[in-house]
Amino acid sequence: MSGRSPIITLLTDFGSEDCFVGVMKGVIASIAPRAVVIDLCHEAPPRRAATAGFLLASAYAYFPPGTVHAAVVDPGVGTARAALAIKAKGFYFVVPDNGLIVPALAGPEEADEIVRIENEACFLKPVSRTFHGRDIFAPAAARIACGVPLSALGRAVSGFDRGSFPAVARARSPDGAEALQGEVIHIDRFGNLVTNIRGLERGRVLSVRCASCEVRGLQETFADVEEGSALAFIGSSGYLEIAVRGGSAAGSLGAETGEKVHVKIRS
Amino acid sequence: MSGRSPIITLLTDFGSEDCFVGVMKGVIASIAPRAVVIDLCHEAPPRRAATAGFLLASAYAYFPPGTVHAAVVDPGVGTARAALAIKAKGFYFVVPDNGLIVPALAGPEEADEIVRIENEACFLKPVSRTFHGRDIFAPAAARIACGVPLSALGRAVSGFDRGSFPAVARARSPDGAEALQGEVIHIDRFGNLVTNIRGLERGRVLSVRCASCEVRGLQETFADVEEGSALAFIGSSGYLEIAVRGGSAAGSLGAETGEKVHVKIRS
Amino acid sequence: MSGRSPIITLLTDFGSEDCFVGVMKGVIASIAPRAVVIDLCHEAPPRRAATAGFLLASAYAYFPPGTVHAAVVDPGVGTARAALAIKAKGFYFVVPDNGLIVPALAGPEEADEIVRIENEACFLKPVSRTFHGRDIFAPAAARIACGVPLSALGRAVSGFDRGSFPAVARARSPDGAEALQGEVIHIDRFGNLVTNIRGLERGRVLSVRCASCEVRGLQETFADVEEGSALAFIGSSGYLEIAVRGGSAAGSLGAETGEKVHVKIRS
Repeated sequence: MSGRSPIITLLTDFGSEDCFVGVMKGVIASIAPRAVVIDLCHEAPPRRAATAGFLLASAYAYFPPGTVHAAVVDPGVGTARAALAIKAKGFYFVVPDNGLIVPALAGPEEADEIVRIENEACFLKPVSRTFHGRDIFAPAAARIACGVPLSALGRAVSGFDRGSFPAVARARSPDGAEALQGEVIHIDRFGNLVTNIRGLERGRVLSVRCASCEVRGLQETFADVEEGSALAFIGSSGYLEIAVRGGSAAGSLGAETGEKVHVKIRS
Repeated sequence: MSGRSPIITLLTDFGSEDCFVGVMKGVIASIAPRAVVIDLCHEAPPRRAATAGFLLASAYAYFPPGTVHAAVVDPGVGTARAALAIKAKGFYFVVPDNGLIVPALAGPEEADEIVRIENEACFLKPVSRTFHGRDIFAPAAARIACGVPLSALGRAVSGFDRGSFPAVARARSPDGAEALQGEVIHIDRFGNLVTNIRGLERGRVLSVRCASCEVRGLQETFADVEEGSALAFIGSSGYLEIAVRGGSAAGSLGAETGEKVHVKIRS
Repeated sequence: MSGRSPIITLLTDFGSEDCFVGVMKGVIASIAPRAVVIDLCHEAPPRRAATAGFLLASAYAYFPPGTVHAAVVDPGVGTARAALAIKAKGFYFVVPDNGLIVPALAGPEEADEIVRIENEACFLKPVSRTFHGRDIFAPAAARIACGVPLSALGRAVSGFDRGSFPAVARARSPDGAEALQGEVIHIDRFGNLVTNIRGLERGRVLSVRCASCEVRGLQETFADVEEGSALAFIGSSGYLEIAVRGGSAAGSLGAETGEKVHVKIRS
């Protein structure tokens, strides 16, 4: 036995009031005793695969190569939706086939291998109809961490469901400026509004508008504005965010997830 | 040094606003540096040993044999209630003697060994009157994980307090059907109502009634009913649950922990 | 490779709705694969360094010597505030220079070594302006856990910012009793009011007054008063606390963080 312990991360909407996550760790420990399990987040909004996908996309690349990322936000549990194991970008992903993977992987062409997890010999039995995190996803992640090839979990497939991660719309305004319309996909702990817009060049942004608020340009950090003022900036995960210094943008602006965000860009 | 690292699980009502759980892990790391600590749940409802017991019962068996389960929901901290170390079913349990163990162990006859933890040499000193999780339970769990025999922790006892885990009442209704009365013992993250009724045969359940809602028979999964409809099913831990597809049963039905649940069974 | 794995603890105000903490663990695992990471608390009140400092002070000493405590409650992120690495009392501390360390270390004279973390070769790049937990504090903690000397992280400094941990005022009342005035610095999971007053001798305390409540003397444990009654006691971390048996002192007394607390002491 040599080298570093394999890492499995867990991202779910299971919350912390129950033992769901602990049970997944018990299953993993039983199959892959050397694996180290790290929690990404368990407070993803219930059943919202798109938000979970954003969270995964913002986090996965900070882990060592070979890390197995298991993300289970799975409103279709118990239906015919597939469970997928994906090798891509030096990592493994174990996810329900509901679009959760989309923010991390633009398309199946970015994957080295996609497998539909269906080899029942790898499941924890009897498989429940309501807790595939325990019975299917945790065992699959544990086996991958042990070095089991994806092909042992099921047959290769060529694509995945794109789900409903909101797209960014592009247009041109009468004055020739480029205009983007995105939306708030996540509100973080501090009340910051995280949008689905990324890839902005700071110097070219003219304004950002969301709910009752319009700010000019992008700032680099909170200290660039007065206490209580709103600002827009590129968040630590590369997405456009709107915040209020020393306060909650969600509270001050009355914005919720899904609120539209408009950006004007110098052409 | 060989084999897998010993596992200790923690289940408490300490929540996440404080360092109580972190401190227990510090104490464990000081005594048992090779032990891996896994959180089962720290949001058990404050001081409700029965609910914590249910959570423990639903989770413990998913861990490798030899795992030490330390569960500290302990309204009697600082009183004369005993602290117990129990060997049963291939696991170890470290618990206050307040009935918390009852859902996992029907009675002392299911245990191989029960010891009252009272050897002060094993405590973290000075022992506080308010934080036995740190001073008594964590050190005991750590020592068991290190291979210390239970008998080194204190003297053997023959039983444990049964506490107040609610019993299921059985009756026969005028039409000859068997009727069970239980109650909601836990509301999970999704608003599902978890009851204290288990061992039901799906095909024999005629109806389930709780608060303002009566549903016919048991379903296998959420997809078996319309969005927004209530259903009853055997949850992933074997207990009867009542849910609303795509919503919160607790919210829709106005039910709280303790709400009575009536089941009619075909004779 | 020998001996026990190094331990890193994390204390933040990052909450659990995001992947911030998980990402810090990914960065640590990439740099220090053998380190064991233990969560102290991630629900410290946002941007309140003083409360975080109290939490750290109540917890750090329960860990094995050599543990690296990384505490990131950092309202000044993106400003010129320094990041510090401190060796003191057998532990390492990695903190923003905003007074967070004060409750744990009365002054710089209690430290063996204080270094300003500024060697950019140790940062995760590009360094964001909003997430130094990921880009500066986690890499520094990981390197210390790997045995990198503090001097490799930056230059030695002689002191640290004292921030705003509230002081306890002392006076003498007309009847000759000593009077202390402190305040509530933390409300724990159970609604107990934790104050900034420590070092009290139980036998000498005449009374404790807070909000609408005055209690006589100090009790040893909850069981010393009736259900529903208020009591004052020395909490498990050595600070004076006010509680209501079987209930929430914060709720019953209508007290919030910052509420003044008066103690009369027999001279």
